[in-house]
Amino acid sequence: MMNPGAVSTVKGMQKLLKHRQLSHIATKFAPLSYSIRQEKLSLSCSKKHNFRSCLHTESTRFQHGAGWRPAQAFLVGTGIVAATAAWLWYNRQQAMCKRKAEVEPGAPIDKLPTYTSEDVSKHNSAATGIWVTYKNGVYDVSEFVSEHPGGDKILLAAGRSVEPYFELYGIHKTREVMEMVEALRIGNVFDMKPVKIKDAYVNDPERSVALIVNSEKPYNAEPPLQLLTDSFITPNPIFYVRNHLPVPVVDKKMLDGYQLDAHIDKSGKGSSHIKPLHIRDIKKLPKYSITATMQCAGNRRKEMSKVKEVKGLSWNCGSISTATWTGARLIDVLKAMGFKEEDLAAKYVQFEGLDIDPSGTPYGASVASEMALDPNKSVIIAYEMNGVPIPEDHGFPLRVVLPGVVSARSVKWLKRIVLSDEESVSHWQRRDYKCFNPSIDFSSCDFDLSEAIIETPVQSAISQPAEGAVISEEDEYVTVKGYAFSGGGRGIFRVDVSLDGGKTWCNPELDNNGQSPYKSWAWTLWETTVPIPHGHNGKLDIICKAIDSSHNVQPENVEGIWNLRGLLNNSWHRISVNVE
Amino acid sequence: MMNPGAVSTVKGMQKLLKHRQLSHIATKFAPLSYSIRQEKLSLSCSKKHNFRSCLHTESTRFQHGAGWRPAQAFLVGTGIVAATAAWLWYNRQQAMCKRKAEVEPGAPIDKLPTYTSEDVSKHNSAATGIWVTYKNGVYDVSEFVSEHPGGDKILLAAGRSVEPYFELYGIHKTREVMEMVEALRIGNVFDMKPVKIKDAYVNDPERSVALIVNSEKPYNAEPPLQLLTDSFITPNPIFYVRNHLPVPVVDKKMLDGYQLDAHIDKSGKGSSHIKPLHIRDIKKLPKYSITATMQCAGNRRKEMSKVKEVKGLSWNCGSISTATWTGARLIDVLKAMGFKEEDLAAKYVQFEGLDIDPSGTPYGASVASEMALDPNKSVIIAYEMNGVPIPEDHGFPLRVVLPGVVSARSVKWLKRIVLSDEESVSHWQRRDYKCFNPSIDFSSCDFDLSEAIIETPVQSAISQPAEGAVISEEDEYVTVKGYAFSGGGRGIFRVDVSLDGGKTWCNPELDNNGQSPYKSWAWTLWETTVPIPHGHNGKLDIICKAIDSSHNVQPENVEGIWNLRGLLNNSWHRISVNVE
Repeated sequence: MMNPGAVSTVKGMQKLLKHRQLSHIATKFAPLSYSIRQEKLSLSCSKKHNFRSCLHTESTRFQHGAGWRPAQAFLVGTGIVAATAAWLWYNRQQAMCKRKAEVEPGAPIDKLPTYTSEDVSKHNSAATGIWVTYKNGVYDVSEFVSEHPGGDKILLAAGRSVEPYFELYGIHKTREVMEMVEALRIGNVFDMKPVKIKDAYVNDPERSVALIVNSEKPYNAEPPLQLLTDSFITPNPIFYVRNHLPVPVVDKKMLDGYQLDAHIDKSGKGSSHIKPLHIRDIKKLPKYSITATMQCAGNRRKEMSKVKEVKGLSWNCGSISTATWTGARLIDVLKAMGFKEEDLAAKYVQFEGLDIDPSGTPYGASVASEMALDPNKSVIIAYEMNGVPIPEDHGFPLRVVLPGVVSARSVKWLKRIVLSDEESVSHWQRRDYKCFNPSIDFSSCDFDLSEAIIETPVQSAISQPAEGAVISEEDEYVTVKGYAFSGGGRGIFRVDVSLDGGKTWCNPELDNNGQSPYKSWAWTLWETTVPIPHGHNGKLDIICKAIDSSHNVQPENVEGIWNLRGLLNNSWHRISVNVE
Repeated sequence: MMNPGAVSTVKGMQKLLKHRQLSHIATKFAPLSYSIRQEKLSLSCSKKHNFRSCLHTESTRFQHGAGWRPAQAFLVGTGIVAATAAWLWYNRQQAMCKRKAEVEPGAPIDKLPTYTSEDVSKHNSAATGIWVTYKNGVYDVSEFVSEHPGGDKILLAAGRSVEPYFELYGIHKTREVMEMVEALRIGNVFDMKPVKIKDAYVNDPERSVALIVNSEKPYNAEPPLQLLTDSFITPNPIFYVRNHLPVPVVDKKMLDGYQLDAHIDKSGKGSSHIKPLHIRDIKKLPKYSITATMQCAGNRRKEMSKVKEVKGLSWNCGSISTATWTGARLIDVLKAMGFKEEDLAAKYVQFEGLDIDPSGTPYGASVASEMALDPNKSVIIAYEMNGVPIPEDHGFPLRVVLPGVVSARSVKWLKRIVLSDEESVSHWQRRDYKCFNPSIDFSSCDFDLSEAIIETPVQSAISQPAEGAVISEEDEYVTVKGYAFSGGGRGIFRVDVSLDGGKTWCNPELDNNGQSPYKSWAWTLWETTVPIPHGHNGKLDIICKAIDSSHNVQPENVEGIWNLRGLLNNSWHRISVNVE
């Protein structure tokens, strides 16, 4: 978020700004702004959906004690203002470099007018103009408000300080972001009282210290590669965590009444018979276990960003893990809820989590019914992960498990299922987790023209030796280990490993845990011990690439698959070690 | 076949020959020799299977009048001797370069002894040694006989001339192959009477002159790219043809009695109730149509062979076509035959064609039952192709259609279905249509360690403009058209086209005929009109690459996917045109 490098390619945006075609910018900026929020905040752009979601929030959050408090909602909303406004400024900054060099963010500027907090607070609507403050700075975001993709939610922060939000999300304290905010500076203020906030993440669970943290709030972390492939099943404490929002609290009281809600979003088709299903009734349905690998769409983004900057958390190769999930089949759950065959003809199954953003919109996703309801796809509503109740970070008490599908669709803290002829309106479904061709940047992308990522491509990575490890020449051999995985149930037919830049290859032993070639929902681990090239001393490059059961291969380089969000990097994995 | 370039990397073989470890060579040569035969001849290495197949042949070929005559069988068998022996010689040739330069193949050599045809005919067994003749040359293939992967079938040609076979398969008349044969030269003969043969392909059907022929016998041809993507459905006359053997004749009389045979290769499981099903009964089952693309595993081999020589027919981008196939579902056919649920638990469904090789072994293939019997995979036993009875070249009267699977498994002239816990023993299943890593050559490959190709990876190619076409600079724009396809029912999410070597990309309009993303059994056609780079004159490179619904991508280059048989080349497709 707020990664300045991510906009280094937005020449088109700057050009447009120059010409003041702001309405056009709004459209062009939309996906970018959405993405910013998606990575950390999750706001909805659909008023209709928000309204429904808010109702949903009322009935779940306040009844059950989970979710955000109004003050948190306000503050995060305020943060949005700062974030989106900051983007605008960043694109103006080159033309304003003089001020940038002179001004300490939020410090008084003598030549600018001074306002009182009361003055500022009056600028809280389209009619009066929208101002926000940061320290002693006053910023006019009015022009940006009309372009704000999230609609009127930006008004939540109108006439107030953005500082609490900056405290909440430390990433705002970078030089680049502060410069971006300062570009909207219009004056000074000296009597603002900062709003105190309660940390929205205060209820997040304890985590293993072994995890490598990519972001604290929301929490995103991956296991160290040295541990990742030690066992076919990833122990729960080091299973990678990818949260989009604070972890919802489901306490004993809430659990006692926990029911999975259902809805059919299709007029005139038997919705009257559909009823929520209590978690205890889900546990009474036939019990299924499936060992499935979850992988974040951003796995290996770090490598992709080396080629050209992308926006997103800088995941190494560890945002992938494998667990045995136990629960009831989705189809059994739907039937127990009262869905009839004709209902199941709806095109999509949507899933909504208990994790909600400040606007009350839940995290959501959808997949095609033909996939979700296909008995061969083994989709379950899980309540156990590796034999214990699903841990808080992984979706307690319920998580839909969609094997072979990017894990963003396996909604955690599952609270509601909707059958619909439309995809989920969630930003993560419609405005994120989509790929574009390598020459499309944020100024030219159109999320509506791209398909949501569902199944994932063939992937592999080296877990050992570690990048930069020192190998003794006297050892003569080096053991190379790693994982390989493909979406859609496709197993791994072959892994190729090279120690000479791809001139020659060897094929490691594969451990696929006995999975069949077209129902491989979990990864394949592999290992080989290869001779160090005779007489080699110094840097040694090691490459791996996998071939799945459809003979799909990994692309050689990042360049051909580069995309602005840094998603689905499955290029050949390359590491270097030192032979001494 | 007999492509000398294919063995240019077999240093290991030469080394082994040098040390006379011939039994070891036999193992190493096996896949190579198999592949030679697979491309043109099709012999079986399984005695057990051959015996059964021969019985089968008796009951189908001679009763119904289709198949090979004994003389043809003998002659092709003779050819095998020459072919396999030739390989051996090729690997000795560098050590024998003096003779190679001096000798006209089959011409008398003064210093060698002279034998009579009677002498030669006596050398027809392991006890006497195995000799064959070519023109005035006598060749001792005794050592090679014991190494012959096809077992005792080589004895069919013992003591006779290989010339008729060379007439039958013109490819033997290349300098390289003749040199390979000559390496086994032991003497002269002057009284051999050449055996007259009847052309095994004499009953092959008439074909469209529009097809581009890659091999006449067996017939293999592809439509010109200019016609390939003119319509979503490929007209039958220009649907690419990939035959492994002569087209079996199914005349009126045979058709009247045509029944699909069945067998369960699993001891003690209800096979007694299984009965053959007459074609008229198959046509009485519920009728299903599916529009599916067939693609040869060797499609685009021509490009792969430019990087490093591979063995196989030199297909351009046209061994792919699309038809609407109509027939009965495989599962319905199996149930009508009397297969019970417990029978269907067998791991594989094997298919056998009416096209048989000289040993009586039918063309065969198999796929996993979990795939063949999956209702979502829409496998049918087809009797119509684009609304008419399946044409002779495409499998009349029955062909199994396995959508999303490499077309070599959609067995034509279908005569028999076997449920088994084993894969088909056909060479095309076990000793061909498999991929290896790029550094494996025929001296190091082990077909048993590689999986048979079933589903195919994402693919695309440019059909227009043609390679080398002249584009007028004054046109300013160029229209680029092509196809994209992926196996396993995966649709095409995006096609990227570049006119500047991959620096920038555009996305053509896609026509997928309304297929859903995970049940796309047919290709996607695409077209875009793009501006010629301003001021460009001269050679213009055009690239295309596709992304399927699992976000699998095509690899950038051939090098990383190169394999000794030149299979599954799905690298970025690149053509060049001239802007004048």
